[in-house]
This record gives sequence, structure tokens and C-alpha cells, in this order.
Amino acid sequence: MDKNEELINLAHRRYATKKYDPNKHISDKDWNTIMEVARLSPSSMGFEPWQFLLIENDDLKQAMYDDAWGAQKSFNGADKFVIILARKNMDINSPHIKHMSEDVQGHAFDPNSPFAKKVISFQENDFKLNTARELFDWTSKQTYIPLANMMTTAAALDIDSCPIEGFNRANIDRILADHDVIDPEKWGTSVMVSFGYRDQAITPKKRQPMEAVYRVIK
Amino acid sequence: MDKNEELINLAHRRYATKKYDPNKHISDKDWNTIMEVARLSPSSMGFEPWQFLLIENDDLKQAMYDDAWGAQKSFNGADKFVIILARKNMDINSPHIKHMSEDVQGHAFDPNSPFAKKVISFQENDFKLNTARELFDWTSKQTYIPLANMMTTAAALDIDSCPIEGFNRANIDRILADHDVIDPEKWGTSVMVSFGYRDQAITPKKRQPMEAVYRVIK
Repeated sequence: MDKNEELINLAHRRYATKKYDPNKHISDKDWNTIMEVARLSPSSMGFEPWQFLLIENDDLKQAMYDDAWGAQKSFNGADKFVIILARKNMDINSPHIKHMSEDVQGHAFDPNSPFAKKVISFQENDFKLNTARELFDWTSKQTYIPLANMMTTAAALDIDSCPIEGFNRANIDRILADHDVIDPEKWGTSVMVSFGYRDQAITPKKRQPMEAVYRVIK
Repeated sequence: MDKNEELINLAHRRYATKKYDPNKHISDKDWNTIMEVARLSPSSMGFEPWQFLLIENDDLKQAMYDDAWGAQKSFNGADKFVIILARKNMDINSPHIKHMSEDVQGHAFDPNSPFAKKVISFQENDFKLNTARELFDWTSKQTYIPLANMMTTAAALDIDSCPIEGFNRANIDRILADHDVIDPEKWGTSVMVSFGYRDQAITPKKRQPMEAVYRVIK
């Protein structure tokens, strides 16, 4: 099999897993690889507006059970259950942007610099991120990049996964805050994802044909 | 090198490329692989709310040049320039959901079915997708999954890429509509991405340390 076939097979291999074998466990080496790929994922302007919570607390899972209806099958059998958080209120006044600029990207942060003006113009004019909800949805979009990368990496290691949007965001955020897991002023639940080993057959993917999703504009 | 090292190296290999070699071209075989992986990407409820436009029209690139400021370096040298569109107004009354249910997923669509009620409850209560903007940002989030998968696939084929949010969405949508490329009632520009072969060195990635982005909740 050549590299191209291998990559297409990998895309088929990744499958939204509903039934996991609760007796199979991901090795530390594989899990560290999945998390390292998540950490190295790109994000808009390199701001990495995310945090990954590996939930190992059964009381917390129980508390979330009804509101995370799309995760219930993962709670029963997935080896790893992850909540991906997105940052709230990440505008130019956010301490996180200053922190990322100065401590990670290594350039001084000045709110009147050309860089800061570019961020402001991008947020206000280009993407029109003018409300808390619009800012959250923007940082949340970024989290779908590591989400995808974690699932692809898992598939390459013969590990199954399931991406999960089936939850009531307001209620999950409240539960996480009540359990002192997040500060709800700073973080919101973006998306969830489980990992483990499937106990089910894979059925062929159903997708629109290429001509429905791809156009060449000549 | 074992598989785990290979996957981490792949994440390092993907690099937001600013300078491409205009003389190098992606083979049809590789490009078809990247697009096939995009097509096979997962999306919320399997609705695939996306379309990929490969822009080969120089007049159109010229028309977008000022408003797609983050794409200017890609216009000069990238072999492939893609606009990823996200569907607008994809609520339960959208013909697309009916189409996906009946023609792709293969089950009858009834707006009073348990499935339809689940979609409505998810959109209205769980994710609170109650405005056109909120619906667009939700379908736009889905497009970041194929975005990530395309870049990873490219990297595995030794092809470089650059994800691009540096554009004025309203203006780009208007230009695409004026050029009869999109119906702006149905589609909006979600994100852009270029591919080619870099003409620059890769510098080591700057990222937050693992302990800043990953927490185990025991």
C-alpha cells in the first residue's frame, strides 16, 4: 500500500464509535502521543485558546450524565473522556493574549502596537467578534483543529474515538463550575471527545459525492 | 522511528507556510488524496455543512487581494488556494438536512420524527443556535475538522500548507457572490487554506507547555 492509500484508509479507519470495550486500555505512550499532537495544533494567531480536561472523576461524570446525552455511550466503556474547553472573552484586553505574546511567542506586547491593532481590526471588522458569544464561537472553532488531529492520531494508533456535541452547554459549564473544575468567566465547554477500543463493526462511511462538496473555480 | 514518533514528527512537520516555491506543483494523485480525506471528515450529525472551492481564477484572486490580506502570501506562490465555505441557516427546515437524511444517510426525513426533534432540541436548547450568526458559526466550526485533516494529510505527503483567517468575511462573501461563485443566502466563507511547497526554513514551534493546556480531573 502506498502512502496515499494509507492516508485514505486512515480517514476510513476513524469512525464515530458508539460502543467501546471497557476492558481495553490505551497505553500511556499512545495517550501522550495523542495529547502531544493536540498541543502542537495550530490556532488563529497562535493563541491556543484551549484546554483539555481528561475526566477521571466518576462523580463528575454522573453529575453530567443527563446533560451530556451524547456522551452517555462513551461514559460506558471509553477509556478516556476529554472535555475541550475554549477561552471566553479573548479580545485584545485579555491577559491571555499578552501572556501568549510575551511568554510563548516571545515578543513584547503593547496594546498600541501594529500587532495589537491588527488583532483588534481582525476581531472587530474582519470577523465581527463583537459579543461574548461571537468571541466564544471563534475560540471554539479553533478547538475543532486539535479535536480532528487527536482523532486522526488515535486512528493511526488503532485507537477509536467519538467526537461529541450532544450536551447542553450552559448546564455542563455550570456543573464544571460547581465542581470547581472551571472558572466560567474564563472558560466554556466547546466540544467533547472520547477514546478507547471499539466493540462494534465499522460500517462504510456515508458521504456526499466529491462533486457535491468540491468545485474548481476557473 | 516508531509510529508514535512519526506522528509527533508529522505535527512538527505541519507549519504555517508564508513563502512558497511557485515552481513546485502538487501532483494530481496527492491533491486527490487531500480532497478525499477532506470529504471523509466527520461533522456534527453527519450533515457535512461545507463546500471546498479551489480558486484557479486570477481575476477572482485579484478581486479578493485587499480583503484577503492573510492570503496575499499564498496568492504569490501557493500551488493550491482553497476557500472552505460553511452553510448558512442549517436549521431543521433546511432542505440540506432533508437531503442529507434521505439521500446520503438513507433514512426518511419527517420534521415530526424523534430524529428531527432531537436536532431541534440540540440547536435551540443545547447549543442555543437561535440566530443566523449562531447557526453559521456552528457550521463553520465543523469546517475546521476537514481544515485540520487536509493540513495533516498534506504534511504526511511532504506538502506544506497555511490556514488563513485573515480576511474580511462580509467583503469576501460579496466578491464571491458578485462573481457568481456562491449564493450568499446559502453559503458564507468560513476559512481559507493554501497548499504548496515551502521556500523557507521551519523554525521550532512555540507552544504552551503541556501542563498549561492539559489537566487530569481525578
